[in-house]
Amino acid sequence: MTYAWPIALAIAGLLFVLALSYSQTLYAYPSGGGSYTVARENLGRSAGLIAAGALLIDYVLTAAVSLAAGVAAIASAFPALWPYRVDVALALLLIITIANLRGVRESGALMTVPVYAFLAVFGGMLVVGFALAAIRGPGTYDDLVGGAPVTTFLVLHTFAAGCTALTGIEAISNGIGVFRPPVSRNASRTLWAMAVSMAMLFLGSVGLTHYLGISPEGAETILSALARTVLGTTPAYVLVQGATLAILAVAANTSFAGFPRVASVLARDRYLPHQFEHLGDRLVYSNGMLVLAGMTALLIVVFQADAHALIPLFAVGVFLAFTLSQAGMVVHWWKARGAGWLWKAAANGVGALVTLATFLIVAVSKFTEGAFLVLLLIPVAAVVFRAVRRHYQEVALELTLRGLPPSLRPLPRPRVVIPISGVHRGVIDAIRYAQSISDRITAVYVETEPGSAQRVRQDWLRWGFEIPLRIVPSPYRSIIGPLLEFLDQEDLRHNDGQQATVVLPEFVPARWWQALLHNQTAFLLKLALVYRRRRFGHARPVIDVPYHLRE
Amino acid sequence: MTYAWPIALAIAGLLFVLALSYSQTLYAYPSGGGSYTVARENLGRSAGLIAAGALLIDYVLTAAVSLAAGVAAIASAFPALWPYRVDVALALLLIITIANLRGVRESGALMTVPVYAFLAVFGGMLVVGFALAAIRGPGTYDDLVGGAPVTTFLVLHTFAAGCTALTGIEAISNGIGVFRPPVSRNASRTLWAMAVSMAMLFLGSVGLTHYLGISPEGAETILSALARTVLGTTPAYVLVQGATLAILAVAANTSFAGFPRVASVLARDRYLPHQFEHLGDRLVYSNGMLVLAGMTALLIVVFQADAHALIPLFAVGVFLAFTLSQAGMVVHWWKARGAGWLWKAAANGVGALVTLATFLIVAVSKFTEGAFLVLLLIPVAAVVFRAVRRHYQEVALELTLRGLPPSLRPLPRPRVVIPISGVHRGVIDAIRYAQSISDRITAVYVETEPGSAQRVRQDWLRWGFEIPLRIVPSPYRSIIGPLLEFLDQEDLRHNDGQQATVVLPEFVPARWWQALLHNQTAFLLKLALVYRRRRFGHARPVIDVPYHLRE
Repeated sequence: MTYAWPIALAIAGLLFVLALSYSQTLYAYPSGGGSYTVARENLGRSAGLIAAGALLIDYVLTAAVSLAAGVAAIASAFPALWPYRVDVALALLLIITIANLRGVRESGALMTVPVYAFLAVFGGMLVVGFALAAIRGPGTYDDLVGGAPVTTFLVLHTFAAGCTALTGIEAISNGIGVFRPPVSRNASRTLWAMAVSMAMLFLGSVGLTHYLGISPEGAETILSALARTVLGTTPAYVLVQGATLAILAVAANTSFAGFPRVASVLARDRYLPHQFEHLGDRLVYSNGMLVLAGMTALLIVVFQADAHALIPLFAVGVFLAFTLSQAGMVVHWWKARGAGWLWKAAANGVGALVTLATFLIVAVSKFTEGAFLVLLLIPVAAVVFRAVRRHYQEVALELTLRGLPPSLRPLPRPRVVIPISGVHRGVIDAIRYAQSISDRITAVYVETEPGSAQRVRQDWLRWGFEIPLRIVPSPYRSIIGPLLEFLDQEDLRHNDGQQATVVLPEFVPARWWQALLHNQTAFLLKLALVYRRRRFGHARPVIDVPYHLRE
Repeated sequence: MTYAWPIALAIAGLLFVLALSYSQTLYAYPSGGGSYTVARENLGRSAGLIAAGALLIDYVLTAAVSLAAGVAAIASAFPALWPYRVDVALALLLIITIANLRGVRESGALMTVPVYAFLAVFGGMLVVGFALAAIRGPGTYDDLVGGAPVTTFLVLHTFAAGCTALTGIEAISNGIGVFRPPVSRNASRTLWAMAVSMAMLFLGSVGLTHYLGISPEGAETILSALARTVLGTTPAYVLVQGATLAILAVAANTSFAGFPRVASVLARDRYLPHQFEHLGDRLVYSNGMLVLAGMTALLIVVFQADAHALIPLFAVGVFLAFTLSQAGMVVHWWKARGAGWLWKAAANGVGALVTLATFLIVAVSKFTEGAFLVLLLIPVAAVVFRAVRRHYQEVALELTLRGLPPSLRPLPRPRVVIPISGVHRGVIDAIRYAQSISDRITAVYVETEPGSAQRVRQDWLRWGFEIPLRIVPSPYRSIIGPLLEFLDQEDLRHNDGQQATVVLPEFVPARWWQALLHNQTAFLLKLALVYRRRRFGHARPVIDVPYHLRE
């Protein structure tokens, strides 16, 4: 007696319920109906943001879980890879990231091959397996696998494998835009094809594993144990493991379509910084992808590419998003009251209840095993979304020209201060520029090495600049503090309501690495000047006068 | 019959030879005679740079090896810590880094306590051990430790422990400045005290381990096995392990004194960027310490805090630096020909030969186990040093005012271009500033959203700015490329030999995190403008006009 079989049936049923309710969503939201959109439109802003937070976190977890599971599959065939699983997972992540940054269309084409290959290879393995089962008859279990009763082990494995199959559903709803018209029908067909084939392979492999009494060795995955039993340690077995790795890489890849798209929708609504909103040069959402890749890499390293440790975190987020989306659909049908709305609402209602139940079970039973982290991060994400939007709104209000006097008083010509590090050609360019915009110019030298000021002053006089040079002593070698102090005192002394403009001579090296050898002071000074809160009326303008070094 | 005992004697002899020759160096170079200084002054620039490269790499390895060994000591007492040894080592590194960044004097005082504590506790343990040995008589070995013959294991362990004792010697030579006058005598006394106590504890523990036939269990260190045998699993045993951790933390700490000091000497000679040259605000070489801490952390992670894996890398570098320093001293005595120069040269000559032999043995026998990496990095470092210096020299030559015509032609008043992202208050400040320095002003709007330009143009006319607004269409949403193109074309059109000044309105948010929500375009545009190589005569000046956001 094991629990694995009923759980497998329950997961297959869940897959069916979700496919049914999501195909309804596809028709109701033909322009893209992810959980965020559906929840926000029907359940209000807070539910939408919670769903969005759950989704974004889940896409990261999907990528991490899929890569970890894929590496486990290939390490089952080549156990020598096991100690390097984190590195292998990161290498795969890098490849997928680069493929996606190169453009979504190319990587889309790249991704259909592994799907068909997996269906063919894994399906073929199951057929051979059933033939073998018919000949050999049922097997018996060892009692323990890795110290745990084999049933517990199988239940966990089954649940894990089933959960990863669910991500694709949300990805299709969010990414409906990439299908050919009629989009709703084509997307729905893909959804059903995926759900049915996943359910068949899933039930087939759980059934076979069960019937043959298969248990894995060491760190091996259960699907690897199945394939190994059916095919022996042959090239065909390696092919199955390779195809498993490939399809899991495709699963990770769905995150690279989904995450940036959800981030872009959020950014359009001003809940995320606007650099997530727009497509990059190659028509991909590069910023979203980079954030996704970074967070996925972090998860892989922290969880040491252990898929089983990541599954509870993943399940919490995905079932929360599912629940909110389904509940939103119920409200949608109730509001619209179209033909047969009651049946549609009922279908989505069942979906909502089933996913809510699953969410609660996982959240409670796996709370201490990482689920708490996701339950914490989701509301935090929602709060951040709101803070971002509030900030943009306040800035828009502050920047509006409404209420501004219609005529602009022109400013007086600026006073100029030029900080110099010595008497050289870079300074000459800065002085000539300053002279073209002002006739009130002061140069200032911060003396960090006692005695150096005297030499600078001599040079200054020798070259006959008709500009006063002021010396600021700095016994503690700091440059920026004394300079800011000097600028403020100069402003006070002149008492003309102006802040002096700072003209900065800046070296521009010929090669990138040479930048490490220059400009730190100029850069820090610029930051200090621009970002310091104003003390006297307006902020202080800063002029960069670049001096290009030849070599 | 084991080889451990002769090797222990050889290492103790090495310690004596090095202490002798280095105490000569201390008197010859009372203002600081590290390997770099001695090798450069006596053997020439290349030898000096090789020694400097070896030294800097070695300080990093010293810190990494000491922390790894310290963590192994404490994990021997608390085996539960073993899986977290990388994290523990990184945590210790963080504490030491912070202590050092807070100031060298405080951390110096902090560091004398563990040294005396270790001498007392470990010396006490040895005394008890010898008493026990006298009572119990000699023990016998198991044949294998962790799969290797026990002799091999002991030899490796002995060599590792001995090597770490050697670092302190170079650290004293480099850091002679921190001793009270008469510096040479005080430093030399410290050197001898250290060498003698290290040799005694070292020989004592090797002898005891040998006599009692001690072999460690699992991942335990051999010193822990010794202390456990002598003291049992008592609080006293834990105290010995704690004291060992503490003294190894002090050893790691010597790197924080040594590395930045060598880097500073190199920077003074222009072989490293000048930000390594000066003391920071708290009179510590902060930049050197940060680089050291970063590289040490990298080593700890890459080598998984395994002291044995790091020892060969460490030994290669330190013995190369020793050899160059000793050989330099021979030349020094030969040149100076003072009283008894022949004896002094002979002492240093023996030191040079012994260290050269050790260097060659380690470099060849451990070549594939990581020594190749150090043998590769040292010359690379030397090449980098030379490149840095060459660059600084070329820049100095290029910047000199010699040959410049004595009178400076003033520039004409600048033309100004203001890129705007819309019609708002930030733009107003920029326009008012531009009007104060120029009467030839153009505003430019890059239209990334089709249709947005019309709204901006309406606003522009409504608010009655008397400045022409130009629209640049950008179908691919890129802002910077079209803007640079526009600026170049404007310059060509005016044909006045000038590059227009760009006035950038820049938002300055009230809180740091809000900077993530603004300014990316302004920042990237500034980089592109300042760092682009000039196409028409002079470089293009850029004016930041900050607009401070209130909330």
